[in-house]
Amino acid sequence: MDIMSQTLEQKVEALEKKLNQLQNQRKDQLSMVIFSNDMDKILAALVIAVGAAAMDTEVKLFFTFWAISALRDKNKKANDKKDVKSKMFSAMLPHDISHLKLSKMNMEGIGKDMIKRIMKRKNIASPEEMLKTAAELGVEIDICEMSMDLMGFKKEEMIDYPNLSYAGVATFLADAGESSIQLFI
Amino acid sequence: MDIMSQTLEQKVEALEKKLNQLQNQRKDQLSMVIFSNDMDKILAALVIAVGAAAMDTEVKLFFTFWAISALRDKNKKANDKKDVKSKMFSAMLPHDISHLKLSKMNMEGIGKDMIKRIMKRKNIASPEEMLKTAAELGVEIDICEMSMDLMGFKKEEMIDYPNLSYAGVATFLADAGESSIQLFI
Amino acid sequence: MDIMSQTLEQKVEALEKKLNQLQNQRKDQLSMVIFSNDMDKILAALVIAVGAAAMDTEVKLFFTFWAISALRDKNKKANDKKDVKSKMFSAMLPHDISHLKLSKMNMEGIGKDMIKRIMKRKNIASPEEMLKTAAELGVEIDICEMSMDLMGFKKEEMIDYPNLSYAGVATFLADAGESSIQLFI
Repeated sequence: MDIMSQTLEQKVEALEKKLNQLQNQRKDQLSMVIFSNDMDKILAALVIAVGAAAMDTEVKLFFTFWAISALRDKNKKANDKKDVKSKMFSAMLPHDISHLKLSKMNMEGIGKDMIKRIMKRKNIASPEEMLKTAAELGVEIDICEMSMDLMGFKKEEMIDYPNLSYAGVATFLADAGESSIQLFI
Repeated sequence: MDIMSQTLEQKVEALEKKLNQLQNQRKDQLSMVIFSNDMDKILAALVIAVGAAAMDTEVKLFFTFWAISALRDKNKKANDKKDVKSKMFSAMLPHDISHLKLSKMNMEGIGKDMIKRIMKRKNIASPEEMLKTAAELGVEIDICEMSMDLMGFKKEEMIDYPNLSYAGVATFLADAGESSIQLFI
Repeated sequence: MDIMSQTLEQKVEALEKKLNQLQNQRKDQLSMVIFSNDMDKILAALVIAVGAAAMDTEVKLFFTFWAISALRDKNKKANDKKDVKSKMFSAMLPHDISHLKLSKMNMEGIGKDMIKRIMKRKNIASPEEMLKTAAELGVEIDICEMSMDLMGFKKEEMIDYPNLSYAGVATFLADAGESSIQLFI
């Protein structure tokens, strides 16, 4: 083997390495920031998440700001006493995923109840059912730590979910940076 | 040719194959979920879509939830009788793309009319004009089947549009997964 | 060197070229359309932007529609007289980033003030502080020219910011097309 082809072999090896790096930068992975706690947007996010997970795509959901209220468990209580402002937030925000409002035509709950009834009749899964399916399909959920702090929610008030972690924006960015699909809802 | 360079040739072939796959995973293609039926958001979505199509980027729009009401044709009627709830939705949702509301400062239509007049004076295309341009530029539209069912809309009520299909979330995910740009509006 | 390996060398060169192109199509870069002027959404956008910039990711923000009002400087005035409609927009839209409203539970400013106080107590940076950090970290801001025209804002009314330009949707699309992360907020 002469020097020329040695060089070529090294070039090919370098290319292989680079190509593997590129592949890892765009995995078959879906990253979503879920910011809203509107029933319709949570539903859309979960339909996309469950659809992707069913196609064997890795799914990572980053719940932040209002959306974290959709992950509360209304039967759980915080251990230590909350300050007045946190109590107000606790009272005013949805107590769990089955108590979300519509972003439009909510009409004091009439519009929302109407949509819920239509969904039932047409066998469209509710957000709470979707969340269970997401858990079964291995969809990962990260809850934004800063938002927990801001809303005054405690970890012991949140739902039981198999793949649930608390994380910061850096975790979302690292995940999103290597995902083939990223959305903000 | 010795065994060494044979192997190298095979390696190069494998690299070429892998590289082509990678390229197909990130086409010059824009995928958007259009969820909102706010006039301002539909306008933003169409400005981005038409801008991309004008630059020869493949554009695929997935209309879902509220947004599908922007694709109704107010002069068309459903063939079979609708149930009461579907009739209510039909009455309350925008009857076509020229009847959308602003997400902010709509003020019973005053704000929206003001923006429409300003747009006309400044030669900024309206959403209905944008949609026509999108059609001319080959922008593809998929309407979410589940949303059609949920809102009780019938296919015969929707606009005539050259590249219109009805699809599920799997179609969006497949398109988005190979698109260089993806947005949720 | 025989013809066979010459061809191989050319193939490897072609692969290297293609691979570099692919790498440039997915830079470590974050592109965001910022459409909303809700305090909570601007905050989320800036937390993501500053987080990415702190991790040495290139960040490009495209402010459009309502969001451009968050980049006004309330102490600056337009040189030439504005028409009546532009004056109305100027009066009704937020005068700077410290005067944004919450998308939910704003309650005539009570909810917003409550969140602002909680943020201060918990040492969470305000949107105005976030914007300063963004400037220091080299985050680039493009303001949508069409939106400036539509809202009747003049360049001399906008904030001083080190990396600020005025651009159209084509600029956003070119940036987003080569970014590893893209979001619409």
